[in-house]
Amino acid sequence: MTNVSPQTKINKIVSLCKRRGYVFQSSEIYGGLKSSYDFGHLGVELKRNIADLWWQDLVHRRDDMVGFDAAIIMHPKVWQASGHLDGFSDPLVDCLDCKQRFRADKAPRHPAGATITYQVKNMEVEGKVAACGYVCPYCSSPRLGDERQFNLMFQTNLGAVNPVQDLLNAISSDDTLTLATIRQRLRKINKGSAVYLRPETAQAMFVQFMNVLQTTSKKPPFGIAQIGKSFRNEIVTEHFIFRACEFEQMEIEYFVPPDSWRKWLDYWCEQRLNWYRGFVNQPDNFRLRQHEEDELAHYAQACYDIDFKFPWGWDELEGIASRGDYDLNCHQRLSQTKLSYFDNQAGKRYLPYVIEPSAGLTRCVLAVLLDAYEESKGIDSHGREKTRVLLKLSPRLAPIKAAFLPLVKDEGQIKLARHLADSCRQQGVHVAYDDNQSIGKRYAKHDEIGTPFAITVDTQSCQDGLVTVRDRDTTTQTRMAGEAAVAKVVSCSSNLR
Amino acid sequence: MTNVSPQTKINKIVSLCKRRGYVFQSSEIYGGLKSSYDFGHLGVELKRNIADLWWQDLVHRRDDMVGFDAAIIMHPKVWQASGHLDGFSDPLVDCLDCKQRFRADKAPRHPAGATITYQVKNMEVEGKVAACGYVCPYCSSPRLGDERQFNLMFQTNLGAVNPVQDLLNAISSDDTLTLATIRQRLRKINKGSAVYLRPETAQAMFVQFMNVLQTTSKKPPFGIAQIGKSFRNEIVTEHFIFRACEFEQMEIEYFVPPDSWRKWLDYWCEQRLNWYRGFVNQPDNFRLRQHEEDELAHYAQACYDIDFKFPWGWDELEGIASRGDYDLNCHQRLSQTKLSYFDNQAGKRYLPYVIEPSAGLTRCVLAVLLDAYEESKGIDSHGREKTRVLLKLSPRLAPIKAAFLPLVKDEGQIKLARHLADSCRQQGVHVAYDDNQSIGKRYAKHDEIGTPFAITVDTQSCQDGLVTVRDRDTTTQTRMAGEAAVAKVVSCSSNLR
Repeated sequence: MTNVSPQTKINKIVSLCKRRGYVFQSSEIYGGLKSSYDFGHLGVELKRNIADLWWQDLVHRRDDMVGFDAAIIMHPKVWQASGHLDGFSDPLVDCLDCKQRFRADKAPRHPAGATITYQVKNMEVEGKVAACGYVCPYCSSPRLGDERQFNLMFQTNLGAVNPVQDLLNAISSDDTLTLATIRQRLRKINKGSAVYLRPETAQAMFVQFMNVLQTTSKKPPFGIAQIGKSFRNEIVTEHFIFRACEFEQMEIEYFVPPDSWRKWLDYWCEQRLNWYRGFVNQPDNFRLRQHEEDELAHYAQACYDIDFKFPWGWDELEGIASRGDYDLNCHQRLSQTKLSYFDNQAGKRYLPYVIEPSAGLTRCVLAVLLDAYEESKGIDSHGREKTRVLLKLSPRLAPIKAAFLPLVKDEGQIKLARHLADSCRQQGVHVAYDDNQSIGKRYAKHDEIGTPFAITVDTQSCQDGLVTVRDRDTTTQTRMAGEAAVAKVVSCSSNLR
Repeated sequence: MTNVSPQTKINKIVSLCKRRGYVFQSSEIYGGLKSSYDFGHLGVELKRNIADLWWQDLVHRRDDMVGFDAAIIMHPKVWQASGHLDGFSDPLVDCLDCKQRFRADKAPRHPAGATITYQVKNMEVEGKVAACGYVCPYCSSPRLGDERQFNLMFQTNLGAVNPVQDLLNAISSDDTLTLATIRQRLRKINKGSAVYLRPETAQAMFVQFMNVLQTTSKKPPFGIAQIGKSFRNEIVTEHFIFRACEFEQMEIEYFVPPDSWRKWLDYWCEQRLNWYRGFVNQPDNFRLRQHEEDELAHYAQACYDIDFKFPWGWDELEGIASRGDYDLNCHQRLSQTKLSYFDNQAGKRYLPYVIEPSAGLTRCVLAVLLDAYEESKGIDSHGREKTRVLLKLSPRLAPIKAAFLPLVKDEGQIKLARHLADSCRQQGVHVAYDDNQSIGKRYAKHDEIGTPFAITVDTQSCQDGLVTVRDRDTTTQTRMAGEAAVAKVVSCSSNLR
């Protein structure tokens, strides 16, 4: 097994994803769209398998968890209460020289008043760093516009209005409109019918806490779990599907009696770390990291990240935060609706504290692919050096559980291979029948897409019913009855542990 | 079994959904949001079960279908090519008297020039119907603004720009801006960084047709299947979750050789009608209806609807259209990218024709609930008349497959009931443990939420291991071993037929 260098590993994954049908750039024929991705026939299955495993382990197997699925577009007051309307923003600045817009908090810093040399239209120019203490990251110019907060929520309008179009019509039909009137109308456009694409799934579970409490008869400690898309108008998107504007989350809000939050935070940190480690090849590439004091949001009592060792370094897969009663409190205040729980046994009413294990499904797909990717050097049948690429996915997560391959395109072999594939399908297992190309190329393809078993039907098989089962990871080939091969595939690919 | 009147049935479903946790109004504590709904702990399971059944039957069980999962926000050129940017709109008109905005194509019609009497501020007024031939549906006024096309796609902006805010800043800092400049900027706002929430999942499968073809080695006839959210800024939303602005679709694009489209259209009509009829109580409430000539979109060769008999009449669950090569052609033209298939055997290149079975997942949830809802009159233990409400859901679709109920809160009974519930969970079956309220109330609750089996553990059970299995539909109670009850639940709730 050779080591793959970190720098090239991500490129190899991107290339495999595109070549084999895991992930495509969205709208590719139109030049693509910034950091927007589509999941191909393999990617959609891998993503579904991860999501289903999470749902089964976190919802179906537990007596203290219920599922939920909220609308993406919620009432704007949700984002007022949560603080997203005011606070979920990045500081942006326009460079007056090169006209680029950039994030002030990421710009290169220099002491205010220092003299800096930079280029404008190929001319060397000197300038003094302004009071803000940073310069343009593109051209180093200190001549900058004012900092403005840019909200990361996508805004749209609900209802039979296109306010910009309405204003355009008004201006076009009435030349006497004053700037003041136009300004007023524009402000209204920015409020009025504005709604937002949720930047997280979490808030719906706070907003609907009382409905869930009443319909489920659950008592704290209990949790609400949700999988769904969220949207953030990120200025910097990076690392393939790791940070994109549209992504999927798997979030839990776990409601506990206030005095037990520490215990439950520890519990969830352990649970979640072990969950990832349960289906990967290199558990040590998953770690728990406690946030420093200065990383904590003002309402968080404590927060941990579950990091994965990505090619660019350790980075976040999941955050597990203790949020106290911050969210329920905010929504209770703004909505004037009681969101507290009455504890019959203790005879008192309280706002539960919340532990929030919030995982990124989209980035989990990337971590699983990176964890599974292996290369080894070998010699092909012509004596040439070749690279064997292998996706060592857990059979529970693999998009295709087995490939049924007639050795050659012979009627009997095709029929038997199809029959065995159908047997698996009837037991709810997703398999492929494949008679394209040489058997060697088919093995290589199924290694590369992570199919755990390649089952070959040959001339002999049509007589004695025995087939060759090739194990993806060891390449060991075992001869067994077709029914036994089917049973092996079905049992190995089950989500049940 | 008593008949439930059509008028009240929908109200009863809405009430049950809210009371039991199937569907809540979104953002309810903030007064809700127009036609926006959240799925509670039961609704999310029912929706998942329908979607999983579809995926299993249409993708996993077939050799000629592959899954897909595209981004919701695609390149705007996708909607230019598809015709949605220009044509996906409703004609809207403002009433000059009552100021309401309404859909021209749904307004009450009168002969142009006819005299009509209507009320303005409680005064009776006479007016003449304009050339358009309709009046305001709210106040009957013929004094109307011009018809304007209102596009149903939700628009938002991608990138570090809030163009309305930018324009506001510009107007505020520069009093000399002319109306012409402002008009120009507003036009730019309406184009520029504008992107759209997809109004259907379908287009992504055309746009990525070549990527799918290349990565799967499929040949026509074959299909691409996708489940996902779509968004339409509907002016009229109605019938609970039937027509909402945010909804989920289950769409297939099935690519066939041009000369075989009729055969495949017939095939899919039959397949899809039988699919619904396979898991419902009243198959006759599902029908196939051919579109009239004047209902057909200009590119459609033929189209059928699968209708369900909703309380308000037959209405569409799924459309099955023969779209020819219209879509591939449009995208090929605008993107200048070849989207044709080269048929090796026939030695020719062609654009496949497309059959599109496009189902509404969200409205399918409603149809399944309506199909399952039953009421019967009975007498309770106090001799009072009572109504028994029953959701006769297929065990494959029921959110909870069985409820394990200790007869009383006795330690031994609780332990055994929990143990049996856990046995089911370990086999991947979603069940509930429930010790709230009297056994009669628990039976009634689980009838109402559609749980197929109620399994009661009593004093005797703790000695001989036998439990009582109550069948939801017949209310028949059978005594059997706990393990046998678990096996029964597991086998009945399997998706495998």
